[in-house]
Amino acid sequence: MKIGVIGGGQLGRMMAMAGYPLGMQFAFLDPAPDACAQVVGEHIRADYSDQDHLRQLADEVDLVTFEFESVPAETVAFLSQFVPVYPCAEALRVARDRWFEKSMFKDLGIPTPAFADIQSQADLDAAVASIGLPAVMKTRTLGYDGKGQKVLREAADVAGAFAELGSVPCILEGFVPFSGEVSLIAVRGRDGETRCYPLVHNTHEGGILKLSIASKQHPLQALAEDYAGRVLDKLNYVGVLAFEFFEVDGGLKANEIAPRVHNSGHWTIEGAECSQFENHLRAIAGLPLGSTATVGEAAMLNFIGEVPDVSAVTAIDGCHLHHYGKAFKAGRKVGHANLRCADRAQLDSTIAAVQALIKA
Amino acid sequence: MKIGVIGGGQLGRMMAMAGYPLGMQFAFLDPAPDACAQVVGEHIRADYSDQDHLRQLADEVDLVTFEFESVPAETVAFLSQFVPVYPCAEALRVARDRWFEKSMFKDLGIPTPAFADIQSQADLDAAVASIGLPAVMKTRTLGYDGKGQKVLREAADVAGAFAELGSVPCILEGFVPFSGEVSLIAVRGRDGETRCYPLVHNTHEGGILKLSIASKQHPLQALAEDYAGRVLDKLNYVGVLAFEFFEVDGGLKANEIAPRVHNSGHWTIEGAECSQFENHLRAIAGLPLGSTATVGEAAMLNFIGEVPDVSAVTAIDGCHLHHYGKAFKAGRKVGHANLRCADRAQLDSTIAAVQALIKA
Repeated sequence: MKIGVIGGGQLGRMMAMAGYPLGMQFAFLDPAPDACAQVVGEHIRADYSDQDHLRQLADEVDLVTFEFESVPAETVAFLSQFVPVYPCAEALRVARDRWFEKSMFKDLGIPTPAFADIQSQADLDAAVASIGLPAVMKTRTLGYDGKGQKVLREAADVAGAFAELGSVPCILEGFVPFSGEVSLIAVRGRDGETRCYPLVHNTHEGGILKLSIASKQHPLQALAEDYAGRVLDKLNYVGVLAFEFFEVDGGLKANEIAPRVHNSGHWTIEGAECSQFENHLRAIAGLPLGSTATVGEAAMLNFIGEVPDVSAVTAIDGCHLHHYGKAFKAGRKVGHANLRCADRAQLDSTIAAVQALIKA
Repeated sequence: MKIGVIGGGQLGRMMAMAGYPLGMQFAFLDPAPDACAQVVGEHIRADYSDQDHLRQLADEVDLVTFEFESVPAETVAFLSQFVPVYPCAEALRVARDRWFEKSMFKDLGIPTPAFADIQSQADLDAAVASIGLPAVMKTRTLGYDGKGQKVLREAADVAGAFAELGSVPCILEGFVPFSGEVSLIAVRGRDGETRCYPLVHNTHEGGILKLSIASKQHPLQALAEDYAGRVLDKLNYVGVLAFEFFEVDGGLKANEIAPRVHNSGHWTIEGAECSQFENHLRAIAGLPLGSTATVGEAAMLNFIGEVPDVSAVTAIDGCHLHHYGKAFKAGRKVGHANLRCADRAQLDSTIAAVQALIKA
């Protein structure tokens, strides 16, 4: 089976390395000449809207999937004429637009921060009056890793904010005084079977994920799985979906979903029986889902901008380097370390050992 | 760091998949148009004696390694002029010739079956008179998976046997009434540090490995590590070396070494903290060696000729498929399953479940 992947970054690269052992082959469509997945599969270098090359991809592969959600709807619609596409167009439509996404949460009875659609500065002023400050203004589409966002703390921040974010459709979200951020990595097969990994506790800095720790027997596991199940079934979803939540007053408020393998699930490569990458491929290929049980105590630390000295990283017991083979650049995710230890105390000291290698 | 690999089969393929996460890149030199490693690296399609293409490989990479030991000595000597080669020429010279190999065991005080060099039928007749029957006659070079061998049980088998094996230099080995076959996968770094995985109990059928089970706390572990250490230090070896032994009367007799990652070490991908493939790369790249500790109870089952139905294999909990992406052909190794379980009873039942999928 040959899989076409829209996007050829580290997610596609890790997906391919999980898929070859299943007997799969891979082609990546990505305009970047240095797309890091190209070393593990065919690279079709083309824009995401280039129909000739999309057609070429569709002709070569058995099905198509995505490593990012901001794929143009037209791309999905075009490909769907020729080849099965997972996850489906509706999942991508909802997940790439914060307004559709939050509205779906509301419709499904999933708590979420107060939110309002912003099409103008007047909309924003009205929404601030209703939701209050502080609040977070985000572009409806194309934001990631803290980009396309502005925190509004006082009236002065509100004036001109719509123009500041590009005068594009936005959403205003009420500020949530959360005690923690967790994500649930779930996978749903073609037959509707759903499996979830243990909740992951995430730490962000400057909007970028820094540290994820798998949290076994989390008291909110069942609640998170309930919420995720509603979304997966509503979208008739196939593949891995990541669901980010705020922990608030002992409950969960939905932040966002990502219709793809997710940075907060990278720990599953060594830390779970079957990784998120393999489970995504199993799901879209119609294979049985793999076990989401953990192997030891697991965590992940992102390497942003540069990968520390490889000798130093590999010298740490329990530490598994995942280098993406990308050029180093400030703010860019260029690798991560997965940590797997026998117990939590050992995991904490291993996290500290890796953190000590990361330049501030 | 870019690694050149002589040979582009499944060993090179799995090596590359272990190396990308370390930030490495790969080029394979292999004459086969369908070399299965080519999907995970550059494929230089050329004969092993093609100096133009060997030079191209040497110019592109930082060091060269091998996935098989029967590389011509001239190839190794040629490459060594331009680029570091691991393991070294001497290790390959010894390992590819059963006479050199057995003589080294003898020189190092490592017990081995009685053996004699056979350059003619007269040599064979004399050796049979001295060693006795039954005995096994093997070509000195190029034999593998039971090929290039003949078991001599009675006088009639001896007559004409030298011609039957091609009138090439051979070795006669006394038959050893062994109670089991075990192998030790060892790795030695550039600095001489050596680490060993737990002994593996191997079951062959028709000369081809069928099943390997990692054997923790094996009573012969220390003895095997002592013997392996003598060979590794003698050869100033760098990389992974597999050492096959017969279990005889509560001791070990050396059968052969393989100067490379080895089929009986495939279980380490999921069954050990750091796989044999990653440890081979760490060793030759001068990185710290990884932990050889086991993760759970582990075993490996080879798929010979064909891979069973992928849905059925992936439905078995604890079973990890490794498909090589090769065309199916009788007698050909086309994949394996790694099994990792919490305890031995569960491992045994998982082995049985996978065996039930393999056509007799």
